[in-house]
Amino acid sequence: MTNNRQQTSIILVEPQMGENIGAAARAMFNFGMTDLRLVCPRDGWPNIEAERNAAGALEQNCVNVTIYSTLEDAIADLQFVLATTARPRDMVKPVFTPDSASAEVLKKSLASGIIFGGERAGLTNDHIARTQGIITIPTNPGFSSLNLGQSVLLACWELFKAQNQTGTSQENLNHNNIPVTQDKLEEFFIRLENELSSTGFFKSEGLKPTMIRNIRSIFTRAELTDQEVRTLHGIISSLLRRHEK
Amino acid sequence: MTNNRQQTSIILVEPQMGENIGAAARAMFNFGMTDLRLVCPRDGWPNIEAERNAAGALEQNCVNVTIYSTLEDAIADLQFVLATTARPRDMVKPVFTPDSASAEVLKKSLASGIIFGGERAGLTNDHIARTQGIITIPTNPGFSSLNLGQSVLLACWELFKAQNQTGTSQENLNHNNIPVTQDKLEEFFIRLENELSSTGFFKSEGLKPTMIRNIRSIFTRAELTDQEVRTLHGIISSLLRRHEK
Repeated sequence: MTNNRQQTSIILVEPQMGENIGAAARAMFNFGMTDLRLVCPRDGWPNIEAERNAAGALEQNCVNVTIYSTLEDAIADLQFVLATTARPRDMVKPVFTPDSASAEVLKKSLASGIIFGGERAGLTNDHIARTQGIITIPTNPGFSSLNLGQSVLLACWELFKAQNQTGTSQENLNHNNIPVTQDKLEEFFIRLENELSSTGFFKSEGLKPTMIRNIRSIFTRAELTDQEVRTLHGIISSLLRRHEK
Repeated sequence: MTNNRQQTSIILVEPQMGENIGAAARAMFNFGMTDLRLVCPRDGWPNIEAERNAAGALEQNCVNVTIYSTLEDAIADLQFVLATTARPRDMVKPVFTPDSASAEVLKKSLASGIIFGGERAGLTNDHIARTQGIITIPTNPGFSSLNLGQSVLLACWELFKAQNQTGTSQENLNHNNIPVTQDKLEEFFIRLENELSSTGFFKSEGLKPTMIRNIRSIFTRAELTDQEVRTLHGIISSLLRRHEK
């Protein structure tokens, strides 16, 4: 990454209305953000309604849009990913406000992304389990219906403010300390889950998804480094070897 | 106002599109604001497009709308009024950002209002001359086209934050679960380290202390709950069982 200001990606999961995608792009570019990732947009891409509502932000050299078929692919290269939800879920993850999230993103200075769910369904627990933390936007408890474009606007605004307040605030990243990318983390989870399946860990198929989510939550929260994930692979290998000795 | 929290009024001067008025009302009510004043709305009032875009915020007991024929009338009862403009004008007035304006409004604790111009013409210098100060919203200099609804959203969001400032930048973890005690965590580490020793994980005695420290670091950082430590015990047991099946 040659950019001295780390870009934050905006990821919309199954967005429905083109006008909200356009509003999101517009909000992003208002605050200098240019990497928009769409996971399975309902109406495909390009989208004339999105362009119409972007006020020019989807033109060349403005916001760049990439389409993905899964969230997993969309965040594969990111190191610090937050999910925006209407309310905290029953998961053990750090919960941020848009401003505390922005401060955290800036402090970490990693390849970061903020995920937003679609208009109807929002994000599933499985989506959220893939993230390092949650953003909730505090609102009037009696009227909390922020739409997608508004939520993206507030997130981008806070990131912009944080970037322009602190100038460059970098944490020292020494080379042993590189945060793992989401694809390597996923690879670790898949391996762990396969080994647990084959050793009879999941006693009930019905509970398996919840158990997997809880296990993932432990490790995503730790914000593992690349080296640490290698260490965890080594731990699994070692424990599996027990009876071979 | 019986409320101990001072209300801030939002004043739209000659707004054109009903959908922007609706979006403004929605944004206001999202952040607990209820006094909307319209100066000469182009399409009169009530406005079906405004209602359609307010997501319920214009219903009874939500945002209250009053119509005025001049700005002078609309701000007559207010004590501290700020005008939102795309850029500072050539006037000697304090210039605020949305967040510094909110802090100022809260500090003064007066009957306050924030004025926004219409979509096409914005505010005239005569309008601005009636105010105690100016708010500009900093944006990407190459793309500063915030629409009316978005500008109102950011203003209301900042007011809401200022009012609800708790001083905590990062909320605590979302556990309704009990954080593990250090003795149980230690017990887990001892077990893990013993199992790793007996399965040949530590290839060099000299490096063992460092490796142990690194492994502990992964799990202490995650701020594990009691339940999660039990899950991790289960994972170890399961992996060790592999060859027993």
